Amino acid sequence: MKYENLFITIEGIDGCGKSTQSERICEWLTSVNACETLRTFEPGGWSGGKFLREVILRDENFSGMSELFLFLADRAGHVEKKILPALKSGKNVVCERYVDSTIAYQASGHGIENVREILSACKFPEPDLTVLLDIDPELAIKRVKNRGGNSADKFESEGVKFMCRVRDEYLKLANANPSRFLKIPVLENASESDIFAQIISGIKGRNLSCQFR
Amino acid sequence: MKYENLFITIEGIDGCGKSTQSERICEWLTSVNACETLRTFEPGGWSGGKFLREVILRDENFSGMSELFLFLADRAGHVEKKILPALKSGKNVVCERYVDSTIAYQASGHGIENVREILSACKFPEPDLTVLLDIDPELAIKRVKNRGGNSADKFESEGVKFMCRVRDEYLKLANANPSRFLKIPVLENASESDIFAQIISGIKGRNLSCQFR
Repeated sequence: MKYENLFITIEGIDGCGKSTQSERICEWLTSVNACETLRTFEPGGWSGGKFLREVILRDENFSGMSELFLFLADRAGHVEKKILPALKSGKNVVCERYVDSTIAYQASGHGIENVREILSACKFPEPDLTVLLDIDPELAIKRVKNRGGNSADKFESEGVKFMCRVRDEYLKLANANPSRFLKIPVLENASESDIFAQIISGIKGRNLSCQFR
Repeated sequence: MKYENLFITIEGIDGCGKSTQSERICEWLTSVNACETLRTFEPGGWSGGKFLREVILRDENFSGMSELFLFLADRAGHVEKKILPALKSGKNVVCERYVDSTIAYQASGHGIENVREILSACKFPEPDLTVLLDIDPELAIKRVKNRGGNSADKFESEGVKFMCRVRDEYLKLANANPSRFLKIPVLENASESDIFAQIISGIKGRNLSCQFR
């Protein structure tokens, strides 16, 4: 199988290893075929998104519905100006966080009831594959603390209870959409390479269909 | 009738006289009863909205759907932090621009098809009364130019054709919702006081019901 023109998203709570695995998946995709792969992320992965990301993660004025709409403003620009042009020109796209993050964090985490209805009206393109890196929230928070560097953002500061609700929602989404989701357990003693091997094995086991080909 | 606890919106294209009439309506409401009236506006009429207004009106990165969601982020914060608290504490609220602006500008003006579906999912509170100041776009543009001061924003620069589409959508909305809309023609030779007198006469002719009382 040629892995061309795929839209792959990587999901999971902070500390699960999205960036590391996203980078490895991109390298692997490039190595197994000639198709160029765009690596990107939300929020903020486009020209208008950088300052939106800062606002979303730091500005306490924006919570609940107003925060939700900033995420959607970011996604709409990202899809229109970066994701769709890449897919339409024949590239693969690997994106850290996407629609499932909005459901897991805003609907379940923050209890905004009409998120699903709003998202359904938005008609964002659906990924061909979503890799869920499923990690225990206590382990994830330990890993985030060990990263050091910047102080925690609004979401990272919400604690274990919040992260448990988000994780539960991710698991529900994965169970409800088994053909789209690839759920990978992230255990304390597993190396990055172990986890990556499981992802690749999972991808190889799928017959991925590319809606943008 | 006591005009208490009403949610009134003022709509119309730039140059129709929204700010002037909004101020007069607020003064009048305060003079005819003891109920305090909050005068506000969109985009930007709340603590988090000032910088959003700048971004919406000036930043060319945001167009189409991403612009729409910035307007909704602004509205969500405005409703949650300013409009609903005022109504719930028994005040009147008079707001320049609201949901009808989004339909007229984003759906009809910019042709975003799913705006109505998204707005319906948002469940923003509905105004008790919407005053539409209906003006010929050529006259409106002349009046905006005569204002001088700041250079035109993104929307003011879009020209007569765009403004005609927006005006047509406003008229369709008014025709489709006659019990909520009060349509006031703004003619070249009419004074501010003439127009205000028509608004008050129109308000007095209504049996306004206040959903937040």
